Amino acid sequence: MTEAVTVLGLGPMGNALAAAFAKAGHPTTTWNRTATRPTPPGTTRAASVAAAVATAPLTVVCLLDYDAVRSVLAPAGDALSGRHLVNLTSGTPDAAREVAGWAADRGITYTDGAITTPTETIGTDAAMILHSGHPVALPALGGTQRYLGADPGRAAGYDVALLDLFWTSVAGVIHAFAMARAENIPATELASFAKDIAMLMPSVIDEHSARLDKGDHDGDYANITAVAAGMHHIIESAAARGIDASVMRAAHALAARAIEAGHGGDGVSRLTLELERASGS
Amino acid sequence: MTEAVTVLGLGPMGNALAAAFAKAGHPTTTWNRTATRPTPPGTTRAASVAAAVATAPLTVVCLLDYDAVRSVLAPAGDALSGRHLVNLTSGTPDAAREVAGWAADRGITYTDGAITTPTETIGTDAAMILHSGHPVALPALGGTQRYLGADPGRAAGYDVALLDLFWTSVAGVIHAFAMARAENIPATELASFAKDIAMLMPSVIDEHSARLDKGDHDGDYANITAVAAGMHHIIESAAARGIDASVMRAAHALAARAIEAGHGGDGVSRLTLELERASGS
Repeated sequence: MTEAVTVLGLGPMGNALAAAFAKAGHPTTTWNRTATRPTPPGTTRAASVAAAVATAPLTVVCLLDYDAVRSVLAPAGDALSGRHLVNLTSGTPDAAREVAGWAADRGITYTDGAITTPTETIGTDAAMILHSGHPVALPALGGTQRYLGADPGRAAGYDVALLDLFWTSVAGVIHAFAMARAENIPATELASFAKDIAMLMPSVIDEHSARLDKGDHDGDYANITAVAAGMHHIIESAAARGIDASVMRAAHALAARAIEAGHGGDGVSRLTLELERASGS
Repeated sequence: MTEAVTVLGLGPMGNALAAAFAKAGHPTTTWNRTATRPTPPGTTRAASVAAAVATAPLTVVCLLDYDAVRSVLAPAGDALSGRHLVNLTSGTPDAAREVAGWAADRGITYTDGAITTPTETIGTDAAMILHSGHPVALPALGGTQRYLGADPGRAAGYDVALLDLFWTSVAGVIHAFAMARAENIPATELASFAKDIAMLMPSVIDEHSARLDKGDHDGDYANITAVAAGMHHIIESAAARGIDASVMRAAHALAARAIEAGHGGDGVSRLTLELERASGS
């Protein structure tokens, strides 16, 4: 008999999770703050968080942010006591550790996880779920599930770094197509070239990470002075077209700061350390 | 007999170009502003730009930026007259058109090109060279060479958009590893996950470009409100670790502006238009 599961939150991701549990044969109870949002086929909606939690040994929560997690869970501490809570909401490592402490105080087994792939991957081989704190296996959600250790903040640490990479890359996509449109280049015409550029990133990531772990920033595929010149071209070209270039200006300012500190001849990987240097100022 | 070629500029890229021409059997003459930089094996260094240009029907110039191009070419206008100039320096479409005008006034056949792949790809199948203005074929440089039309600014228009995508993505790599290091996650441990994230970008690019060309921004893989929340998590987490988050702050400000303008429920592709809206203000 497949175990009962409760899912709190029916946003796009919570909805996908509940649907995947139901599809895999788990008796699935859901709850959502706004009752108008439909519960997926095969799942049963509960009237309150406490009532939802009481139906299953395992509760999965996936909300917009940790503020929502705190306010949704607050009245359900007693109901969750002795049960297992898996929090798949995106948040910071500190927020994850704080909720883990709240759970520990109430005898709640706690797993903090992060889903690093889009909603439509849930239940498929393409899903990627990282988790830490108490280990858990959720085969109904599919894909790769990686346990990163007992520190409940560890998965969030990975998640925030990976989200950072994803959304900064998306910011690049958003901006690149604005630049193309300003030159009357159709977006779908640029796309095949843009995908070739995107395919360069795995080798950039390999070189960047290897150099960071070795502490060797003595020149890689581009030195910081050349990078700053390249970024300056982009800012100039955007400004000439009246396109906002604030993301690239911020990236350029980092490179300029590294040059000023005497690192212009170093490779790009040195800029990761420059970001950390900001913490001293 | 393979035609003689002149290469102006022996930075990392100019050096790779000269080496590739020589390797393919072109009698190759080089020139560089600082004479201390060695010319690649099999090439001959000339004492002046005019002397270098006089040795070949085709001159390839690849310098740090267009300011350097203008100052290097200025004394060589007469020497270049009746010859073919291929400018592979990265720059803006307007700068390319300006140099094209200068060349036309002097009876110089002009091609403006852009190399969108790293130095080490030159002469290999992995090279990607875009060009516009006068069509040219440079098989010695290898890879894919795409002609984008008679407007000499067209290749630069593609190039600046692709560089924008590349360097913004690199800014994401730079920052993601700072976030990981702050949580004591080794860079090489994050790298395999980071590469999985990078591999999501081609499908993001396909969806983004298709929606732009259709003018349909009615929700895609994430709505702008959810994106802004995700970006806010990253900024919060960086701030808690004393890590500079100015790139993500700029990206978040764009999303916040779109939400304020009533587009919070739209998909990410809408943000490309929001960048253009800046031009009205």
